[in-house]
Amino acid sequence: MLSKNTVKFIKSLHQKKFRKQERAFFVEGAKNVTELLLSNFTISHLLCTEKFQEENASLLSTFAGIKIMVKPKELASLGTFSSNDQALAVAEVKGNKPLVLEKGQLILALDDIRDPGNLGTIIRIADWYGINKLLLSENTADIYNPKVLNASMGSFTRMNFEYVDLFNKLKGSGIPIYGAFLEGMNVHQLTDAAEGVLLMGNESNGISKQMENIVTQKLTIPAFGKAESLNVAIATAVLCDNLKRNMQ
Amino acid sequence: MLSKNTVKFIKSLHQKKFRKQERAFFVEGAKNVTELLLSNFTISHLLCTEKFQEENASLLSTFAGIKIMVKPKELASLGTFSSNDQALAVAEVKGNKPLVLEKGQLILALDDIRDPGNLGTIIRIADWYGINKLLLSENTADIYNPKVLNASMGSFTRMNFEYVDLFNKLKGSGIPIYGAFLEGMNVHQLTDAAEGVLLMGNESNGISKQMENIVTQKLTIPAFGKAESLNVAIATAVLCDNLKRNMQ
Repeated sequence: MLSKNTVKFIKSLHQKKFRKQERAFFVEGAKNVTELLLSNFTISHLLCTEKFQEENASLLSTFAGIKIMVKPKELASLGTFSSNDQALAVAEVKGNKPLVLEKGQLILALDDIRDPGNLGTIIRIADWYGINKLLLSENTADIYNPKVLNASMGSFTRMNFEYVDLFNKLKGSGIPIYGAFLEGMNVHQLTDAAEGVLLMGNESNGISKQMENIVTQKLTIPAFGKAESLNVAIATAVLCDNLKRNMQ
Repeated sequence: MLSKNTVKFIKSLHQKKFRKQERAFFVEGAKNVTELLLSNFTISHLLCTEKFQEENASLLSTFAGIKIMVKPKELASLGTFSSNDQALAVAEVKGNKPLVLEKGQLILALDDIRDPGNLGTIIRIADWYGINKLLLSENTADIYNPKVLNASMGSFTRMNFEYVDLFNKLKGSGIPIYGAFLEGMNVHQLTDAAEGVLLMGNESNGISKQMENIVTQKLTIPAFGKAESLNVAIATAVLCDNLKRNMQ
């Protein structure tokens, strides 16, 4: 049965302050919860409906944490979804471990992406393009925000990420740093293999001046019409697609 | 001065029913309102702050409609933005005129895109890639929904669009119809020029069976990682980028 304390605990996790204090976060919906069950995250509470239990019996057979059977109405009242007839899970946040910048990989660096929906969508794009390392500036949205996790569609489980001062992390690293700018090299003419760091800037201000100084190749998505710019998640996808196509 | 009737009228336009009845819609914020002023839409009311007036004096000098000076607080109470220190404008909706399917053009067709944010983002992408014709299935979100207009960042002003039965419109048209599927031709291998119709499907169900039958070339964005799918606006951008690069 769902206790008042558990309800209070989960509801507190909507706020970053309590996620930090409790070192916990929640995910909701079948896709995110099944991905979480398949990942190496430590799940403390699994709240699920009869339906979820039936549809995921084998996946649940090895689950050793606290499982609480609930009604869809209870799930919806705890999370952010207007309806949820499947599951909600609480897991431990991972520590902020330094990422190793290896050669031969494409790594994504986000310079103050503030919108949780954009961050979640970018994580899903990174996962599609086989990127599993994310460097996040300290003012980037919290990856454990429910809106980020929902937009990521489970892809957050496959990401290694570090919140870090991007300038200190990347200066002098000796690896190529690609940055998205309005006046760079036409990305359609790029023939480089997808190796290095792709740096994406803030929704309103783009890449900061400090970071611009360490970009080794400015890239531009050619425009054929009159829109002034593209959303940052859209631009990330187009640049990843252009960088990755050269690997084939 | 802002009358009670004008307030009531603008607030009613949040709902599709009243937009249809009044044949009117509103846009908000500096970007959308200045784009509207530069377009061929007929503006009935322009509500603006001193700030907007000062910053757009020459653009406003030729404006012949009703102009009402307001405070930011009044603007925010009328629209969907939490703050708006610039402007809000009401304009007439355009009639649903049949679009001519010309050869040598890339046209976008949307098969039940339900999310207003996705539709608005797709319009911005279309505008970036020089596409100005949109065919919209009758169950696609209303283009005059404030969330669509906001996400489009003014690009809706450059679109010609028709809400139509896509199957009847496109069957037997004799022009190439590209469709986004999970098992199609790798879009990185496409060498065709960007001519024809790019058909994008519903967020949950993809392209309908009926429409699948008239697709002449199925396209797939190659995956390099483990995400199951991409958001429909993201996929639209990547496909447009791949179709347009062959024009250069």
